Amino acid sequence: MEHPDTQPAIVLVEPQLGENIGMAARAMANFGLASLRLVNPRDGWPSEKARAAASRADSVIDSAIVFAAPADAVGDMNFIVATTARQRDGFKPVLSPVEAAREMRARAGAGQRCAILFGREKFGLFNDEVALADAIVTFPVDPDFSSLNIAQAVLLMSYEWMKSGLAAETDTVFRGVDVAPARREALLSLIDWLETALDERGYFRPADKKPKMLDNLRSVLTRPGFSQPELAVVRGVLASLDAFHPRQNKAPGEGRTKGTGA
Amino acid sequence: MEHPDTQPAIVLVEPQLGENIGMAARAMANFGLASLRLVNPRDGWPSEKARAAASRADSVIDSAIVFAAPADAVGDMNFIVATTARQRDGFKPVLSPVEAAREMRARAGAGQRCAILFGREKFGLFNDEVALADAIVTFPVDPDFSSLNIAQAVLLMSYEWMKSGLAAETDTVFRGVDVAPARREALLSLIDWLETALDERGYFRPADKKPKMLDNLRSVLTRPGFSQPELAVVRGVLASLDAFHPRQNKAPGEGRTKGTGA
Repeated sequence: MEHPDTQPAIVLVEPQLGENIGMAARAMANFGLASLRLVNPRDGWPSEKARAAASRADSVIDSAIVFAAPADAVGDMNFIVATTARQRDGFKPVLSPVEAAREMRARAGAGQRCAILFGREKFGLFNDEVALADAIVTFPVDPDFSSLNIAQAVLLMSYEWMKSGLAAETDTVFRGVDVAPARREALLSLIDWLETALDERGYFRPADKKPKMLDNLRSVLTRPGFSQPELAVVRGVLASLDAFHPRQNKAPGEGRTKGTGA
Repeated sequence: MEHPDTQPAIVLVEPQLGENIGMAARAMANFGLASLRLVNPRDGWPSEKARAAASRADSVIDSAIVFAAPADAVGDMNFIVATTARQRDGFKPVLSPVEAAREMRARAGAGQRCAILFGREKFGLFNDEVALADAIVTFPVDPDFSSLNIAQAVLLMSYEWMKSGLAAETDTVFRGVDVAPARREALLSLIDWLETALDERGYFRPADKKPKMLDNLRSVLTRPGFSQPELAVVRGVLASLDAFHPRQNKAPGEGRTKGTGA
């Protein structure tokens, strides 16, 4: 994990509910953030409700620092952004979460300490608190339903911070098994075998349609780009159907389907 | 808002807590999603706890549809992704939220209906449920703390869906006032005026340092790229200091600072 000093601090200004502080801490932990600052939490600190809602993100809760005023909470910071859902008067640049995360990532890389301000559940940040920030961050929400829960807002910024540190924004923690298509000969061999098995059952009827039917069959089996292990599954299934289907030109199976039906 | 049929449906499989359903609905509404499907919610449906937690996202709650099994919930869908924090065996591609949103956006544009599956609070999705999906989505979380709350997971996917529909992923609902730098003559005129005011106070001392000091002053005032309204603020502040400072070569002011101090 990154050193906390190279990460943005999450600053919650006068949060009202311990549950929200806890859910914010959990969201931070999900994306590797450790530094939580609380300005004058309404119900005091520490908070058992916060700890319960943090769902084992105890290290974030334990290391949270309480301040009396927003200016104190960001005094040691070099670059500060304020989250808000409302347009504000003034001269501040407005950033999307993606831009804000990239900007902070670049500044952190240059040794600057960054903080993200989040406002109260009901009122957000006051103008004089927004004024502390270098820039505003706002979320691309539905304008008709723009009020984000505070923990959700913390989550989105934490998520974008994590993404800004990935080599590619499309990186994930794990990747699927490599599904490179098998060597084409494996597929062709399967199709050949299948053609024979189907021929024996009279699948290709009328006979003059066979080339077209075979083309279709090849297309259907080619398009998925089956990997070698997938082809093995397909072949196993087809072979199983083949083996247990009572056919005229084979000795009757010893198996379960003996006697009855088609 | 987009027509719901062109949006992905959010499918919660056996959600346990009404509060989580409600918070998920709120997150959907924040990012303009309307179609919520519930598979066998543990505490029944409708749920007053869900409605309370939805925080006025009533339309999402009211239009939620309940299904008995995951296969029923996605029966009318063309493309399905399953969210999971764990690596799974099998042949499914693994997508980041960004990739999944782009893929669904492209398919929705081609008339395909898409769904996103979310698992239970404690266990996630079972393997046979993941098997219903075309692809897996996983979040770029801290591997040491990878368990996302269900509403948080819904939020992230809803957010990425919204972003995938923006002309640029850095779009926001509102933008700051345009802070184009003022015409340079406005800045130069301010600097000229300031030079005179400072000269009168003997600021440029010793005299041979004046050119360097003036260069610095020009640099400091140029770098911010002040807009015309910002320059007006700066000029007002400086003019105010100038007017009310008791100076030798001016008649004493009539104002408040009369008499006392420097």
